[in-house]
Amino acid sequence: MKGFSRERVVIEDVKPLIDCGRFPVKRVTGQKIRVTANIFSDGHCALSAVLLWRHEKNKKFSKTPMKFVDNDLHEAEFTVKSEGRYFYTICGWVDEFETWARNLKRKKEAGEDISAELAEGAKMMETASAKARGADKKKMEGLIGALRNTKASDKAYETAVSSETALIMGRNPVKSGESRLEKELEAVVDRKKALFSTWYELFPRSCGTGGRHGTFKDCEKMLGDIAAMGFDVLYLPPIHPIGVKFRKGKNNSLKAGPSDPGSPWQIGSKEGGHKAVHPELGTVKDFENFVKKVKSAGMEVAVDFAIQCSQDHPYITEHPEWFKWRPDGSVQYAENPPKKYQDIVPVHFDAGDNRELWEEMKSILVFWIGKGVRIFRVDNPHTKPFKFWSWLLGGIKKEHPDVLFLSEAFTKPHVMHELAKCGFTQSYTYFTWRYDKAEYTRYLTEITKTEAGEFFRPNFWPNTPDILMGYLQANGRPEFIIRYVLAATLSSNCGIYGPAYELCENRALPGREEYLDSEKYEIKKWDLDRPGNIRNVITLVNRIRKENPALQETNNLDFCDVDNERVMAYIKKTQDNRNVILTVVNLDHANRQSGWVTIPLKKIGFDAGAEFRVRDLLGGAEYAWKGGRNFIQIDPWIMPAHIFKIIPK
Amino acid sequence: MKGFSRERVVIEDVKPLIDCGRFPVKRVTGQKIRVTANIFSDGHCALSAVLLWRHEKNKKFSKTPMKFVDNDLHEAEFTVKSEGRYFYTICGWVDEFETWARNLKRKKEAGEDISAELAEGAKMMETASAKARGADKKKMEGLIGALRNTKASDKAYETAVSSETALIMGRNPVKSGESRLEKELEAVVDRKKALFSTWYELFPRSCGTGGRHGTFKDCEKMLGDIAAMGFDVLYLPPIHPIGVKFRKGKNNSLKAGPSDPGSPWQIGSKEGGHKAVHPELGTVKDFENFVKKVKSAGMEVAVDFAIQCSQDHPYITEHPEWFKWRPDGSVQYAENPPKKYQDIVPVHFDAGDNRELWEEMKSILVFWIGKGVRIFRVDNPHTKPFKFWSWLLGGIKKEHPDVLFLSEAFTKPHVMHELAKCGFTQSYTYFTWRYDKAEYTRYLTEITKTEAGEFFRPNFWPNTPDILMGYLQANGRPEFIIRYVLAATLSSNCGIYGPAYELCENRALPGREEYLDSEKYEIKKWDLDRPGNIRNVITLVNRIRKENPALQETNNLDFCDVDNERVMAYIKKTQDNRNVILTVVNLDHANRQSGWVTIPLKKIGFDAGAEFRVRDLLGGAEYAWKGGRNFIQIDPWIMPAHIFKIIPK
Repeated sequence: MKGFSRERVVIEDVKPLIDCGRFPVKRVTGQKIRVTANIFSDGHCALSAVLLWRHEKNKKFSKTPMKFVDNDLHEAEFTVKSEGRYFYTICGWVDEFETWARNLKRKKEAGEDISAELAEGAKMMETASAKARGADKKKMEGLIGALRNTKASDKAYETAVSSETALIMGRNPVKSGESRLEKELEAVVDRKKALFSTWYELFPRSCGTGGRHGTFKDCEKMLGDIAAMGFDVLYLPPIHPIGVKFRKGKNNSLKAGPSDPGSPWQIGSKEGGHKAVHPELGTVKDFENFVKKVKSAGMEVAVDFAIQCSQDHPYITEHPEWFKWRPDGSVQYAENPPKKYQDIVPVHFDAGDNRELWEEMKSILVFWIGKGVRIFRVDNPHTKPFKFWSWLLGGIKKEHPDVLFLSEAFTKPHVMHELAKCGFTQSYTYFTWRYDKAEYTRYLTEITKTEAGEFFRPNFWPNTPDILMGYLQANGRPEFIIRYVLAATLSSNCGIYGPAYELCENRALPGREEYLDSEKYEIKKWDLDRPGNIRNVITLVNRIRKENPALQETNNLDFCDVDNERVMAYIKKTQDNRNVILTVVNLDHANRQSGWVTIPLKKIGFDAGAEFRVRDLLGGAEYAWKGGRNFIQIDPWIMPAHIFKIIPK
Repeated sequence: MKGFSRERVVIEDVKPLIDCGRFPVKRVTGQKIRVTANIFSDGHCALSAVLLWRHEKNKKFSKTPMKFVDNDLHEAEFTVKSEGRYFYTICGWVDEFETWARNLKRKKEAGEDISAELAEGAKMMETASAKARGADKKKMEGLIGALRNTKASDKAYETAVSSETALIMGRNPVKSGESRLEKELEAVVDRKKALFSTWYELFPRSCGTGGRHGTFKDCEKMLGDIAAMGFDVLYLPPIHPIGVKFRKGKNNSLKAGPSDPGSPWQIGSKEGGHKAVHPELGTVKDFENFVKKVKSAGMEVAVDFAIQCSQDHPYITEHPEWFKWRPDGSVQYAENPPKKYQDIVPVHFDAGDNRELWEEMKSILVFWIGKGVRIFRVDNPHTKPFKFWSWLLGGIKKEHPDVLFLSEAFTKPHVMHELAKCGFTQSYTYFTWRYDKAEYTRYLTEITKTEAGEFFRPNFWPNTPDILMGYLQANGRPEFIIRYVLAATLSSNCGIYGPAYELCENRALPGREEYLDSEKYEIKKWDLDRPGNIRNVITLVNRIRKENPALQETNNLDFCDVDNERVMAYIKKTQDNRNVILTVVNLDHANRQSGWVTIPLKKIGFDAGAEFRVRDLLGGAEYAWKGGRNFIQIDPWIMPAHIFKIIPK
């Protein structure tokens, strides 16, 4: 061909498009993908275009006609119904019959003789009918006869421009200059939990009684309470044998005492590595059983996938080529000079042939999938190559599209986003480090209103075992409620590290934003009924999330104007406006704040002066409001937020 | 490989990038291409990246190191020195030595033992020196010795972190995880005239004396005057034999009288087609001679490439397959129902095998290139396939990179832009239809400050033989000056259809924006010294353009705030700020206007309170100004614009 193309239609500026189509967009089952593109050709012809889409398991594309919007922009959408990968592309062509019909009308209106045109039209229809089948073919034969009937040219004209003819010819188009997008675009479709999940991070080690190391069996007793609070993912730190060499003691001290359990992230000992279970928790069998119990309680287990090894990990001797060795013959442990982490040895992804290493890593996931796990929280993915993650997550999801991955990458924005592009289902975020209204607005706008919304699914955590922010240390119970309400209503995926969170645990290492006596290094004894705990509030917020579909997605967020910098308000709504939630949060933990909130009435389908009710799902009160601008007042010591359901009058 | 990639570096958001790299950016010789990209990797390693670039005639890439800017953004630029196509791409890698040196410094500062590190560094340097040559190799051997000298570890450390070592290792990097952009990007580099040209459209037919049809020989007499006005491109409407069948008469009437010359765009008669010269103009030999004369006068000839044919064109009988035939056996002439253009037959690009047609079209260009032509103004390119233009213009420029093409596509924005992407050097624009400050600001911002600035080179025409806007019909001499000053200072490419323009010809067809007694259909007798003509002003404006490099590019435009909607002001400057031009135009042709102009002093390298002089290159006056905000007053009957040169005190 060498350039002698017959294509005439240009398809440009396709959206969504992540890095020129190198990465898929993300959806969950039941969602839509709306695709737009500028589509045009040379000349003044009529154009048609279709969106072609298929699930990876279907060979044949489904077709959705694209609708002209304005200034060459066309759009179409389709609903993704199954988990897995979808492919979609766009085809456009010059519609010869429509072009002809358009010119015919103009000539007729100008009072010109159209007999030659009718003959041309009949000829074109003959070409089309030769390829048609069934009822259409039969009807087209009738139409051709009518067009050819020179004795009844008015009738012939009426036939030519009738909407029935347009419909039939739309189904059997006479195409020319057809073009197709160079690239097929992709979407990864996850199950609904990828978009709406409520996580509870629990250290099984502390579930025992009388200071004894907890077992999976012990944990089972907790399940009812955690499920009753409304959580649906139970995330466990690594459950593998913990190394002995260089084990850390209490508060991350360099020397562990004989009874110190060490950090669960120090994976591997003579008892086994990533496919073994820490003997003090139980056996693999116990774990499998636990997975089932969690399921019975209405939750799912998420396990930790942390690639580092302890110096006792069997890999060190079985696969010395996967590690970096120093000139003195010792293994290169993790360090970030001058800090040293002698208890952890990173895998050296650059060493030797990487295939065996990658395959072994995959086999770990496959092993736990075999034990019933469908959610992995991945530790520090940003210190392993992106290409590894693309290969690994893509490979796993090909076999198990229901498996979800949460990326624990607290790092630079481009790296966080790249990991999401490479296949992580959800991502930890900067939420924990945002504090005032301007910061939240900027950050949420960035991740929900830009291209990032297509591939990056935030999961908001107000605390983790590693992070106890200053505001939680200092501001007391109201702050714990504020941050949970924010996490749970801004993002449809959220989580807490408990029971520390619901007990408002605030004791920190001096001058640090880390827990004092961290559970990472010791067995804790939590008093679950500690006074001042916020179990009831969390339970209520989680119930509100479950009952209101508007809170079960994230990109539907819109901030509302409030004339008080300490009060933040935002709307979330379902596409059909049947469920609209207005959250108003007093960001000031100490003082009553008030202000005027402006609701974008038009956006939620109300007239400018509409009267409606708002019911506070947190406090229970109900108010009659009128118009977009309404007064609110919030006392943080009673309840630092309203979660209003907006109800048409 | 199937996914087992060793790449670790991500290179994303490359700019400029036109449609994911499907189209080249445009430059002229001597300009720079500044390339930016987000470049990052997993982990915490030191990265390096280079911009690789080469002219199509060089096999080897030149390398320019990319500089880190901020937040993963890297940049580098290179100057394009030769006409033709350039290729460029980006390579990034983990710099193992730099990563090592960075960690070494931190350990040293923390007072740790670094002997093992020094040994590692020496080993790494050995690997690098094995591949090095010449002086570097020799120096590296010395460095290795110093690192290995355990007796002088302080000296070894100093050697390791010295800037000399960094330079040598930068030249001989120890790379890992190297990545390269998937795609090589392209730039088309034209000669300088592509960016800075001043066009004069002339009908040779009217250059005769005593009502006689002008010849090329007659035209020669005009050359001195046109060159003296400062034009450097002399554009001739089609010079080919004009058809007889359906020839148009005066004022586009359907019937031509026996002496009516017809429209030059009705190409082809029994005397020949696109490779022939209209006998009344002379011979091909005469034309060749004329091309030389024009060159001697300091200008270049541009000819018209208009693909349509008259019904007498030899192609009609020689290549009936290139045209569309109606059921009654007649050839399909151009129409836009209910309008009919019986004098013109469009080529049917969809008919049969398109190769022969495309090759024939190319042979027309090659023919005229053979006669000395290097500039083509292309008539109505938007009614021919884009793929045809890509093939044609790309093919011609491969052999003749100095050939320039001006696209005459007055059509939808996406189509205008697509033609520019497909290879047109310059483009007609919507300039003629813009009238007030808001419109100009919006339009110029769109074409100079967005991606369009990378591929779309505007050519501003205040009139053409087809277009005489209402404001020129009604507003008299000041308006002609206003629109020329705007065209000539907003865009570095501009042109007029003369002598109509400089004579302020304003007689129009009633109720139309077209010339009365248009030269398209008759021989005109212009009185070149007609009172009220603006030859002197045009001469002055063109001289100012020639003397001020700031006016010789377009994307360097920045609008200035003026507190009067009828006054528009804008800055153009060279990158080094050595030439700064402030144009202030009174858009009101009838009334004196005044206002305060705000110059962005910082942008032109001045302090906020700077004192400087402005010299009005149009009026001659000079003013002392202080600070960014200064008063101006313009009387359109004296001179409706200032073109100030800004001169540091």
